[in-house]
Amino acid sequence: MVAPLADQLDIVIPTIRNLDFLEEWRPFFQPYHLIIVQDGDPTKKIHVPEGFDYELYNRNDIERILGDKAWAISFKDSACRCFGFMVSKKKYIYTIDDDCFVAKDPSGKPINVLEQHIKNLLTPSTPFFFNTLYDPYREGADFVRGYPFSLREGVTTATSHGLWLNIPDYDAPTQMVKPKERNQRFVDAVMTIPKGTLYPMCGMNLAFDRELIGAAMYFGLMGEGQPIGRYDDMWAGWCTKVICDHLGVGCKTGLPYVWHSKASNPFTNLRKEYKGIFWQEEIIPFFQNLTLSKTSTSVEELYLELAAKVKAGLGHIDPYFTKLADGMVAWIEGWRLLNPPKTA
Amino acid sequence: MVAPLADQLDIVIPTIRNLDFLEEWRPFFQPYHLIIVQDGDPTKKIHVPEGFDYELYNRNDIERILGDKAWAISFKDSACRCFGFMVSKKKYIYTIDDDCFVAKDPSGKPINVLEQHIKNLLTPSTPFFFNTLYDPYREGADFVRGYPFSLREGVTTATSHGLWLNIPDYDAPTQMVKPKERNQRFVDAVMTIPKGTLYPMCGMNLAFDRELIGAAMYFGLMGEGQPIGRYDDMWAGWCTKVICDHLGVGCKTGLPYVWHSKASNPFTNLRKEYKGIFWQEEIIPFFQNLTLSKTSTSVEELYLELAAKVKAGLGHIDPYFTKLADGMVAWIEGWRLLNPPKTA
Repeated sequence: MVAPLADQLDIVIPTIRNLDFLEEWRPFFQPYHLIIVQDGDPTKKIHVPEGFDYELYNRNDIERILGDKAWAISFKDSACRCFGFMVSKKKYIYTIDDDCFVAKDPSGKPINVLEQHIKNLLTPSTPFFFNTLYDPYREGADFVRGYPFSLREGVTTATSHGLWLNIPDYDAPTQMVKPKERNQRFVDAVMTIPKGTLYPMCGMNLAFDRELIGAAMYFGLMGEGQPIGRYDDMWAGWCTKVICDHLGVGCKTGLPYVWHSKASNPFTNLRKEYKGIFWQEEIIPFFQNLTLSKTSTSVEELYLELAAKVKAGLGHIDPYFTKLADGMVAWIEGWRLLNPPKTA
Repeated sequence: MVAPLADQLDIVIPTIRNLDFLEEWRPFFQPYHLIIVQDGDPTKKIHVPEGFDYELYNRNDIERILGDKAWAISFKDSACRCFGFMVSKKKYIYTIDDDCFVAKDPSGKPINVLEQHIKNLLTPSTPFFFNTLYDPYREGADFVRGYPFSLREGVTTATSHGLWLNIPDYDAPTQMVKPKERNQRFVDAVMTIPKGTLYPMCGMNLAFDRELIGAAMYFGLMGEGQPIGRYDDMWAGWCTKVICDHLGVGCKTGLPYVWHSKASNPFTNLRKEYKGIFWQEEIIPFFQNLTLSKTSTSVEELYLELAAKVKAGLGHIDPYFTKLADGMVAWIEGWRLLNPPKTA
């Protein structure tokens, strides 16, 4: 099996259960270091299959390491995964849900997700103009006639958003309306989300350049004590996209697929989501119209600016957003604690 | 064979040769009316296989019908196809090059291009937010979690841009560098090009709503007497995209594929293209930064406004753009001549 950048990428897995799903991933994941973020009861023992190189953090660890900033890390919600992004020392992160398994391509070959994500991250993005034959850097493809030559070098890629076969990532209402729908269509494409366009970033199968955009990959306040859930990755997606657009770096979506094994309970999901479903009608225009300070190129600085804009621009919706903005600031404080500036 | 909207769609084919390629398309195209725009020597007789319902226009016909506006229709260039858009009386247009044949899907089934294009045109577009599972209106797909519900009705679709297997639509430099590259990848997707994003629209395999956007589907001044070629469809693509964005209607790309049989001569292409290759470096930012009058919703009016902006904004590049702007005005005059306002 190909294990590219095994020394430069951590796999982050949030979980509340035994990680038996790793057995299926063994040939692909074993060369990598895992960061397991245990959610819920910290006294529970999580079983990790033998032979994996990992570190595991439970709630007590998070409290100990982050102290008075620990509240910014969600509890009883997979949003806690972002603690793993913060504590990693590697350049790249891949994060996956523990109900996602190895998908197969149309020829029946198991898909090496990391190989594809790393390909996506190491080749440029093209956010300024759409290429109709999709990823121009892929073998057998290129830029089509009419694509400006000045844009063909592309820009650095910050994120690689992979998709899911079998159970699609639907919201509760759609789950309820279409309980039997399965995603069976393998779309053999990777593309850059154009600049200025937002997308719903799902955290199930996601890779990113931690050094480049990690400080903005905060999964918000979800779970216990919070009025919403299931918007953790959406929040991170909106925030990272506007910052990537500001920085002129790229976000890709498409390949690789994972096999998403089971739908979460739509009734539970509806309870978690319903506020988000109407709040997002205001949040999305907020992000669409957002402009960040032109001079700053530090993601930490830009993220703090964004936090201030969230407080000012979304605070009227619900007190939650004021708290979330404070959480964003605490996240950066925690980030800086664990990721101090490199000294020469 | 399925022949949807056979009474509401014309197929426009520009050609300089006998249309033997129609034999392969017979099962799909015979139910439709064809508009053949004969380019070059009008005394040459074009053979159309028997059994097709068609009207044919040569240069003499164009001169006769458009009189002192005929100069706006290119000569000795497939850009002349737009005369067919103007003279049609149907709601929809499909246009195809005569070196494009029936492609097969991965199961080996011949692809009914019109069925797919019409599906694309009759289902809404989603230009305001990206759906990671591509076309949400397709069977087996939907909007993913986090897609705003207020945007799920979508908007009217104006254009459907189809792709090409075998010979990809490359510019001359890319053709020269990769003479053997063939597009063998069938990407099973249709997507909306997001609002604010330009794309290189190719005229080889293109459908559109003539009533909605036809007045902006002018293929510019190319061929004899003009300093550039092979930018006819690009020009139409930039113009229609900014007008569609202004109107809040959609442009799709992806399926259906045609089989593009042969690459045009890269040396000839380079001669035609080379000015366009550096001009587009200025043209594209011009279109990216263009704003049209907010109040107008008439495509004819918007197109005249665009013509004035082209003259003012691109005239400094070359006198050609002043002439092109005049051609845009003459095109609208011709359009109005042949498409007078419907009276009650």
